Amino acid sequence: MKKNGLFVTLEGPDGAGKTSVMEILAARLKETGKPFIQTREPGGIRISEMIREIILDQANTEMDARTEALLYAAARRQHLVQKIVPALQEGKIVLCDRFIDSSIAYQGAGRGIGTEEVREINRFAIGSTMPDLTILLDLSAEEGLARIARNKGREVNRLDSESLEFHRIVRAEYETIAETEPERVIRIDASGTLEETAEKAWASLKSRLP
Amino acid sequence: MKKNGLFVTLEGPDGAGKTSVMEILAARLKETGKPFIQTREPGGIRISEMIREIILDQANTEMDARTEALLYAAARRQHLVQKIVPALQEGKIVLCDRFIDSSIAYQGAGRGIGTEEVREINRFAIGSTMPDLTILLDLSAEEGLARIARNKGREVNRLDSESLEFHRIVRAEYETIAETEPERVIRIDASGTLEETAEKAWASLKSRLP
Repeated sequence: MKKNGLFVTLEGPDGAGKTSVMEILAARLKETGKPFIQTREPGGIRISEMIREIILDQANTEMDARTEALLYAAARRQHLVQKIVPALQEGKIVLCDRFIDSSIAYQGAGRGIGTEEVREINRFAIGSTMPDLTILLDLSAEEGLARIARNKGREVNRLDSESLEFHRIVRAEYETIAETEPERVIRIDASGTLEETAEKAWASLKSRLP
Repeated sequence: MKKNGLFVTLEGPDGAGKTSVMEILAARLKETGKPFIQTREPGGIRISEMIREIILDQANTEMDARTEALLYAAARRQHLVQKIVPALQEGKIVLCDRFIDSSIAYQGAGRGIGTEEVREINRFAIGSTMPDLTILLDLSAEEGLARIARNKGREVNRLDSESLEFHRIVRAEYETIAETEPERVIRIDASGTLEETAEKAWASLKSRLP
């Protein structure tokens, strides 16, 4: 898959501010005049939306962790093929909220399937299209959950009901990924204000712009 | 996954008579008094049924081959965990219509993803629970398609519209699997009458009964 654009992903726990930071990055990118798209899995892709409905259905309490990981990989594949790759081929910057690292941290480490096994099925899904830059919004598990609890307007899904220990394991795995791939993954402290976090994220992105 | 039963799968192209042969094998097994179950993916497992609906929806013409392979693996995992493994652990014989070899032949070879890659995601899905015996009903692509065409009452799905060449590649891959794993896979000529085919299938199964 040939590509000319820049593939940027945002990662981190719910509550770290990914959605708000993404909006600010998009506004800054718009000022530069460079072509870009904003997306998040399932990205409005019909097949991926159908898969996501199965994953997030709170009735599916009997879902096996490996079934879930395979479904995330399937939804990711379709979103990649129909939306991300075409945009990169047109030379666009792609800002994507969550990608492969979420599966490695949440399914591989959090659910205990094993990070290498989850990485393998995701390699099957994405081929060589790894992000050029991943901005990791780092936040303690306690603070992430506290922010979610305060944000009462937000819809609660099946993954929110996991324990504090689960979220600690997820955070530790994100840290491991950042240490293993320092060129790709930039870790940013997200414990301050949104403006502070967004400023650091923009500095990382700006330095990589084509 | 510890197991005590016998895990038997039926494989081969549509039109080879898998469903009818399965019924005859089940009737013979009933006579022996040994406990068994008959199943086929998605096996009445709610999550797997939901996944299958996405795969077989004729509207999903934009579905990528790797997305499809991941969805089959996900549906297989859930069916395995909720139905096959519990039956094996109770010491039952499990007769299953299609399993991992179908994905390797249809997705890996037929759709050209690559057999090793499809085998890997399926290993993620099934772990160490490979069939003890696989009965492969072998039939030429021409004869398989001709039988489907004659069987007008059968519902046509998205996979039936593939070309003759596709079905030839699938058959060749099934042959490769049978040659590579002669202990597990018994190839049976399915070009004769249903009774002849079923008799050979029963002879294979009978010799492996606990």
